[in-house]
Amino acid sequence: MNETIKTLLHHRSIRKFEDRPLTDQQIRTIIDCAQAASTSSYIQAYSIIGVKEKEKKRRLAELAGNQPYVETNGHLFIFCADLFRHELLAEMEGADITASLESAEKYMVAVIDAALAAQNAAIASESMGLGICYIGGLRNNVEEVAQVLSIPKRVIPLFAMTVGYPLHESSKKPRLPFEHVYHEEGYNEDKKELQAQLLEYNKTIQEYYLQRTGGERSDTWTGQMAAMLSKPTRMFMKEFVEKQGFQRR
Amino acid sequence: MNETIKTLLHHRSIRKFEDRPLTDQQIRTIIDCAQAASTSSYIQAYSIIGVKEKEKKRRLAELAGNQPYVETNGHLFIFCADLFRHELLAEMEGADITASLESAEKYMVAVIDAALAAQNAAIASESMGLGICYIGGLRNNVEEVAQVLSIPKRVIPLFAMTVGYPLHESSKKPRLPFEHVYHEEGYNEDKKELQAQLLEYNKTIQEYYLQRTGGERSDTWTGQMAAMLSKPTRMFMKEFVEKQGFQRR
Repeated sequence: MNETIKTLLHHRSIRKFEDRPLTDQQIRTIIDCAQAASTSSYIQAYSIIGVKEKEKKRRLAELAGNQPYVETNGHLFIFCADLFRHELLAEMEGADITASLESAEKYMVAVIDAALAAQNAAIASESMGLGICYIGGLRNNVEEVAQVLSIPKRVIPLFAMTVGYPLHESSKKPRLPFEHVYHEEGYNEDKKELQAQLLEYNKTIQEYYLQRTGGERSDTWTGQMAAMLSKPTRMFMKEFVEKQGFQRR
Repeated sequence: MNETIKTLLHHRSIRKFEDRPLTDQQIRTIIDCAQAASTSSYIQAYSIIGVKEKEKKRRLAELAGNQPYVETNGHLFIFCADLFRHELLAEMEGADITASLESAEKYMVAVIDAALAAQNAAIASESMGLGICYIGGLRNNVEEVAQVLSIPKRVIPLFAMTVGYPLHESSKKPRLPFEHVYHEEGYNEDKKELQAQLLEYNKTIQEYYLQRTGGERSDTWTGQMAAMLSKPTRMFMKEFVEKQGFQRR
């Protein structure tokens, strides 16, 4: 097993960091790696915002649901779907590209582009001995986050990533069974088989929680998911996405 | 520079592969790495379909716009946003989760989850000396692709990835300037500055094409993008996404 695969398989989210900033060189390497990811038809439809200012990080931590590691870390990155530069270049080239910019297709492309770049940033960070955590909580108050970061139309802040020197080890949560996630030749729609796999997986998860909490917690994955998904969250997202000029047609 | 960062920075798309299948062990490692990626609140909202059957690959290559490397490679993976298993678990748990499943928020989550997993698969493959290419062209005929792969409601085939033993070296396309993609403390909306950066970038790109084509081609990036985005493509995507049960509210 090579070092890169070891790094990939060793991933776990880190939620407590030293209060020790990354160097400019570290930040540069992380961004260079992010930019090296594939991009759909060379469109490069994302931007990354780095935040160092203490007060701004504190405010973002608050908006993300009071997660202290959004404030205290080595660096805070915000990954954005971005078609703003394409609007600017259309102006330079005298082209009308509004239909493309507003299409569901290009929204998909921009979200995927941003996520591929982010995952490269995550792997680069981890390969340097740093820890990371994705922060979807940034979307709890996406309007306010957009204001704090001066985000214009044609840009959507998708998630943040905290990077820094880990202050704890954390355990790796078992993933869904290989056979459940990986389908051969076509999607396996066999409800009975899939549900049986989920029940089997539940046992793994219960054991994981029992061990980790010394017997206090024994959630199943299906139970956790059903509880979470029963309470729809961030139901303002459709309006926000459209207001930013995406996914309109 | 560690080996992982070297792998990340060395990425380039490969569009010609040996007709030599990956081993089951290689496929397993690639999927294990994909699954090790972060997932939003443990939701694991994606699936991966692997295709080996020659005839099916030929058909998918055709649907993706006659790209021969979709047919001839080591393995073909299709990455899907997937909330189908969540629908099944809701049934098992007696929960009503339709609002969540149909929300713009969960569509975003599923697309990001799938992309993070895919990028881990890409990096794992490249670290093993294999080449990869993302295939967005799969969306050219997304309805037919969904049929060929028996994809149910609550699942969207986002893109494919060909993996295999490279039959060529390819050059790395220069990315947008660091300062253009990476913003400090907030989004830099300064139109003049951003457009000046794009003009500077155009020179880099022109030089790149001139060198690569022995003087035959001298596109600019803004010219390329304006031409591409002037012709909206895959305008059926909004309808397809909604039909699959995503992004409805």
